[in-house]
Amino acid sequence: MEKNTKKLTNLDQIGEFGLIELITKDFEIVNDSTELSVGDDAAILDYKRDKSIVTTDMLVEGVHFDLSYFPLKHLGYKSVVASISDICAMNGITKQITVSIAVSNRFKLESIQELYSGIKLACKRYNVDLIGGDTTSSLKGLVISVTAIGIPAKSGHVTRGGSKHNDLVVVSGSLGGAYLGLQVLEREKQVFLVNPNSKPDLSNYKHVVERQLKPEARNDVIDFFIENKIKPTSMIDISDGLSSEILHLCKNSGLGCRIYEEKIPIAQESLDTCEEFKLEASTIAFSGGEDYELLFTIDSKDLEKVENDPDLSVIGHMTKESDVNLITKGGKTTPISSMGWKSF
Amino acid sequence: MEKNTKKLTNLDQIGEFGLIELITKDFEIVNDSTELSVGDDAAILDYKRDKSIVTTDMLVEGVHFDLSYFPLKHLGYKSVVASISDICAMNGITKQITVSIAVSNRFKLESIQELYSGIKLACKRYNVDLIGGDTTSSLKGLVISVTAIGIPAKSGHVTRGGSKHNDLVVVSGSLGGAYLGLQVLEREKQVFLVNPNSKPDLSNYKHVVERQLKPEARNDVIDFFIENKIKPTSMIDISDGLSSEILHLCKNSGLGCRIYEEKIPIAQESLDTCEEFKLEASTIAFSGGEDYELLFTIDSKDLEKVENDPDLSVIGHMTKESDVNLITKGGKTTPISSMGWKSF
Repeated sequence: MEKNTKKLTNLDQIGEFGLIELITKDFEIVNDSTELSVGDDAAILDYKRDKSIVTTDMLVEGVHFDLSYFPLKHLGYKSVVASISDICAMNGITKQITVSIAVSNRFKLESIQELYSGIKLACKRYNVDLIGGDTTSSLKGLVISVTAIGIPAKSGHVTRGGSKHNDLVVVSGSLGGAYLGLQVLEREKQVFLVNPNSKPDLSNYKHVVERQLKPEARNDVIDFFIENKIKPTSMIDISDGLSSEILHLCKNSGLGCRIYEEKIPIAQESLDTCEEFKLEASTIAFSGGEDYELLFTIDSKDLEKVENDPDLSVIGHMTKESDVNLITKGGKTTPISSMGWKSF
Repeated sequence: MEKNTKKLTNLDQIGEFGLIELITKDFEIVNDSTELSVGDDAAILDYKRDKSIVTTDMLVEGVHFDLSYFPLKHLGYKSVVASISDICAMNGITKQITVSIAVSNRFKLESIQELYSGIKLACKRYNVDLIGGDTTSSLKGLVISVTAIGIPAKSGHVTRGGSKHNDLVVVSGSLGGAYLGLQVLEREKQVFLVNPNSKPDLSNYKHVVERQLKPEARNDVIDFFIENKIKPTSMIDISDGLSSEILHLCKNSGLGCRIYEEKIPIAQESLDTCEEFKLEASTIAFSGGEDYELLFTIDSKDLEKVENDPDLSVIGHMTKESDVNLITKGGKTTPISSMGWKSF
């Protein structure tokens, strides 16, 4: 990042207020509910009679991302998407975000602008207003904290609890890609460390690398629910891995479930990468996080509304018994335990 | 903190979900607007027809606080107070907060519980609900990010812009104490580093140390406005220092002002500490941050409502001319320039 011969700007040359002004000036306000945005002690939102949904996430360099292969623009984009995904998981649409960053003095103004160009792109893509934040220095590395605020869809918000016996368990998109992308990028980093002249060829891994570097939140699934008059009985987004999220839905709903291994959606590119890395595809789908797909349950009468959508997969059903089980391709029943990503 | 002989708990022994459950279980919900709190992908707030006010702050160890003299419980309390103060500055009352933390592995569970005991105390003192957050590990030190959400007082929100020519400039409480408290604590730290057996005697500095370690947000001033039917024409909280905040009010209102040095409220204890440290009290009041007092402007017809309140000081008035001037005790006119605390 600092290889560029162009003269870069130290943050202390511009100061905190100058930095805030510079990085926020190009953000346009697109939502009526944003009455007052960046530039005062706080922002003012007018949600009329709508309820609001609030979520917050913190991303730490060296824990959640590695800047040696994660471009800052993508990082900005992904930070916003991760929070929007949490609002989706409540059956909601994000309207505003705040973004706070702490940066060490190794970061130049131009790097922060890169980060914010990704944040801006996500705001534009998802019709979200940046309404506030904080910028400060850190002793080491980059820390990003995003708070997202939104409104529930007209049908109302959906929690992790609320699914009923015999409800169908459905997942959007495909799973495991983001984790596999991370493996590919980590491998290329190791190659680069041994031979700094090597040029990574990622053309065979486009899908999985994009799943890692530029994930999307499933606002389109929320739109699909509205169009098809579906209200999920429970929902969660897959940030920690399918098994961890399934356990949350079951625990919060006070039920168990049966999930069928053969129904788990895994993209062909992911299967190919698994083969190359000698990884078990189902394990990756269950344990790999950061796919930002939605896992939800619906009443079984809604089956026909989802079964023909190639982007939605019915992977099982809820049970009265509290066992959370996987039915393997070989027909064996085995308990699902949390194998999700751990922060500590 | 780790001197205790009691066996302390590593965070990886309890895990992220266990930690969240443990630190949030004692928080009570006190606001009707909090419909769904901690424990799902996001919180649900029901503000009916009220607008909402949103602000966010990030505090970084080694930049904003030094744990060698800042007790974790006080730190938790102050983190919340700083955000509540921003909501006050909009003429609002805080209803909810989210708190995200990143901690290095040197922190034990018991330390995090100390931090949250301070957060809880602030929530209780200010009738605020903790509705969400994130906990993760950091590579170094502690980072705290607080987002506060509240509602405007019935008279509506107040921004930094909006003051008119001849409006009176008023400040609550007294200034400079928090900065002086920091100087005292820094001095004791140096003494301790030279002689680890020394026991600090802070009894002469109770006021200033408390201003630094346990500041309060001025919700009571917002209540005073309501009782006395005052709506400030502009307002800001004093987190960076009086001069920096005055410049914000003037810039955002498109006006100048005249501030009278002799009117600046400084507590006797602060004057005493200034004398001991050979510091100029006015300079400290203008440049020292973190007092979390409110600086606001009111229509001059409201003068009689504030002039007899010992806790409010009329320190000057707004002018059509854009000069931001200080009239010194000697009668000299000198421009006020920003001398506030800089994050970079």
